[in-house]
Amino acid sequence: MNNHIYFDNAATTFIDEAVANEMKPFLKDYFGNPSSIYKYSSAPVKAISLAREKVSRGIGANPSEIYFTSGGSESNNWAIIGSTLRNSNKGNHIITSKIEHHAVLHAFDYLEKRHGFNVTYIDVNSEGIVDLGQLKKSLTPETIFVSIMMANNEIGTIQPIKEISQIVKDFNKSIIVHTDAVQAFGNIPVDVIDLEVDLLTITAHKIYGPKGTGALFIKKGTVIDNLIHGGGQEKGKRAGTENVIGIVGFGKASELAVKSIKQKSKFLIELREHLFSRVISEIPDIVINGSRENRLPGNVNFSVKKIEGEALILSLDHFGISCSSGSACTSGSLDPSHVLIALGLDHGTAHGSLRISLGKDNTKEEVDYFVDRLKEITEKLRLISPL
Amino acid sequence: MNNHIYFDNAATTFIDEAVANEMKPFLKDYFGNPSSIYKYSSAPVKAISLAREKVSRGIGANPSEIYFTSGGSESNNWAIIGSTLRNSNKGNHIITSKIEHHAVLHAFDYLEKRHGFNVTYIDVNSEGIVDLGQLKKSLTPETIFVSIMMANNEIGTIQPIKEISQIVKDFNKSIIVHTDAVQAFGNIPVDVIDLEVDLLTITAHKIYGPKGTGALFIKKGTVIDNLIHGGGQEKGKRAGTENVIGIVGFGKASELAVKSIKQKSKFLIELREHLFSRVISEIPDIVINGSRENRLPGNVNFSVKKIEGEALILSLDHFGISCSSGSACTSGSLDPSHVLIALGLDHGTAHGSLRISLGKDNTKEEVDYFVDRLKEITEKLRLISPL
Repeated sequence: MNNHIYFDNAATTFIDEAVANEMKPFLKDYFGNPSSIYKYSSAPVKAISLAREKVSRGIGANPSEIYFTSGGSESNNWAIIGSTLRNSNKGNHIITSKIEHHAVLHAFDYLEKRHGFNVTYIDVNSEGIVDLGQLKKSLTPETIFVSIMMANNEIGTIQPIKEISQIVKDFNKSIIVHTDAVQAFGNIPVDVIDLEVDLLTITAHKIYGPKGTGALFIKKGTVIDNLIHGGGQEKGKRAGTENVIGIVGFGKASELAVKSIKQKSKFLIELREHLFSRVISEIPDIVINGSRENRLPGNVNFSVKKIEGEALILSLDHFGISCSSGSACTSGSLDPSHVLIALGLDHGTAHGSLRISLGKDNTKEEVDYFVDRLKEITEKLRLISPL
Repeated sequence: MNNHIYFDNAATTFIDEAVANEMKPFLKDYFGNPSSIYKYSSAPVKAISLAREKVSRGIGANPSEIYFTSGGSESNNWAIIGSTLRNSNKGNHIITSKIEHHAVLHAFDYLEKRHGFNVTYIDVNSEGIVDLGQLKKSLTPETIFVSIMMANNEIGTIQPIKEISQIVKDFNKSIIVHTDAVQAFGNIPVDVIDLEVDLLTITAHKIYGPKGTGALFIKKGTVIDNLIHGGGQEKGKRAGTENVIGIVGFGKASELAVKSIKQKSKFLIELREHLFSRVISEIPDIVINGSRENRLPGNVNFSVKKIEGEALILSLDHFGISCSSGSACTSGSLDPSHVLIALGLDHGTAHGSLRISLGKDNTKEEVDYFVDRLKEITEKLRLISPL
């Protein structure tokens, strides 16, 4: 067992050695600007093209439908703002869910406040599944865009994206459908044709690739405004000299993720269920957050009643165990998770949440060590808890 | 002398070995998400903080005024779109010059076409210097934003940014002034206090750092809309998990660039003047583009009359010499450079332009080899030219 137990793979993953090895030559030899026309730039040009193929294969897209970005947040903002402003002449109503990542929610908020769009935030049930009846009822002739995430970053709930796309497209096939598949990609099968979405967001650093590189899938024929205007990179849709090192890493990481998905998924589900069953049977007053079945293989999220999540994290950190209370992007905030509140949890229970996101290198031994420590910590903290 | 002569340092530079060495540990050991609260993330958190300090020192800013982005294009778009939309209640007029990089021009174009702003494009003189009288006259009570680049990417002309800021601020100090200093940074002194700008764009891959990382300086008190909304990174102003590897590289590259700027500048000016004087005296019908004095140290740009720039580049490539006809971001386009047209060049002369951008590892021997080959190529091409 490692001295350090990393249980926060939904926040970010380590870079796979094979990925790092593909990236390294681009730190030294292959530095040419891919936009230049001389031979010296042919290595980066080919490397980007190969990466685009690998990433596209990972989601069942055509390489020409993959646009590299600086990550999931940029891709989500581009999809949401670019679609909405481009189609503002067709309507002023846009839809998302209450449990999206902040990169989605805050982009919607911006469109509402700065540009005057009407936003509907769809409810979820106690497992975190979007209310499809409410979605159906909320569609109007003014609706131009819908964004629902494929799998939640905190509770791992997997949404019925295909059904969602069909409901929306049955109502009006010109409404653009986007899904944030950042957490899904590499963990469960993602196929853009099967999902029937127009836009889909993925990123490298959740699948053992580097931080700072993501992609937006834009289905052929879907027209959205650019978010970053300028040079002719990415067929004129995303300006800026390409992050060649990052793109190369993303390509390799996608290839590996897709290759190992079945075996990785089986392994992680076993690990997750072992963790869940030990925690439930050995620690009193535990509430599982999210769905037990419709869940990302490596996602564990539960609340320990009468204890603050932050206290748990810091105590676990003391034992060399890294995990989180929810999204990494909002840690430091004192507000309870908007995802857990949307599930119907009271503030106290929401504050006691712990997210364990398991990765391919974790072991049963680590899980057991974690549960043993958590038992001790819980007993100790409950003794001194004012709650 | 290398087998390969790289004369396109304005398009991108190689990664300095010292920079690559600082980046490498982040490919392996230090992968934690900087937003997480456990100890394991303290290395990336510290690394980003140190990089921010180094970058800020390079432009005379406070570290709290540096916001990391995915590069110059994102920084320019953020500055332009974020300032303009934020202040749209104060006026609908924005100003730039005719010779900006496309990341600036296309962002202005977007604001004009999608959001209905009035844009004034200021002329430049035959050396590429912005017409200050015209700038002064174009300011109106409706003006909310001005963006003029510090040094041009094609012809290297350095603008009087301090004077420009003063003209604008004397008229109305609430007008936001931005400068794209992507080409200036690391080549000539850049000091945000001296320049009196509110926003300033820089990037890593022009100063021997990695592609895919840049920064926007936002002067304390200047409020602009986010371009990428979401998590709390970069004090809530630029969402997205940080590109730690890239940021670390940018920090080191900035440190080195600033340290060596005087010696590098002297060396490059000597090399440039040697190149200019040989070309002028040995090749007939050469037109120097841009200013001979107000010029970036490493920038050489001239037109070879009656010859297409692309033919020159490909012939030079044959001899292992990489250079360009203008901006890398627009190569492949058949239009003549908008910068050269703005100087008053006819289309033929503009099409015959060659940009040599010298870097710190280039040598006099390489310059001499280049001029010798250029003489041969020019003679040969002129014999077969239909022009």
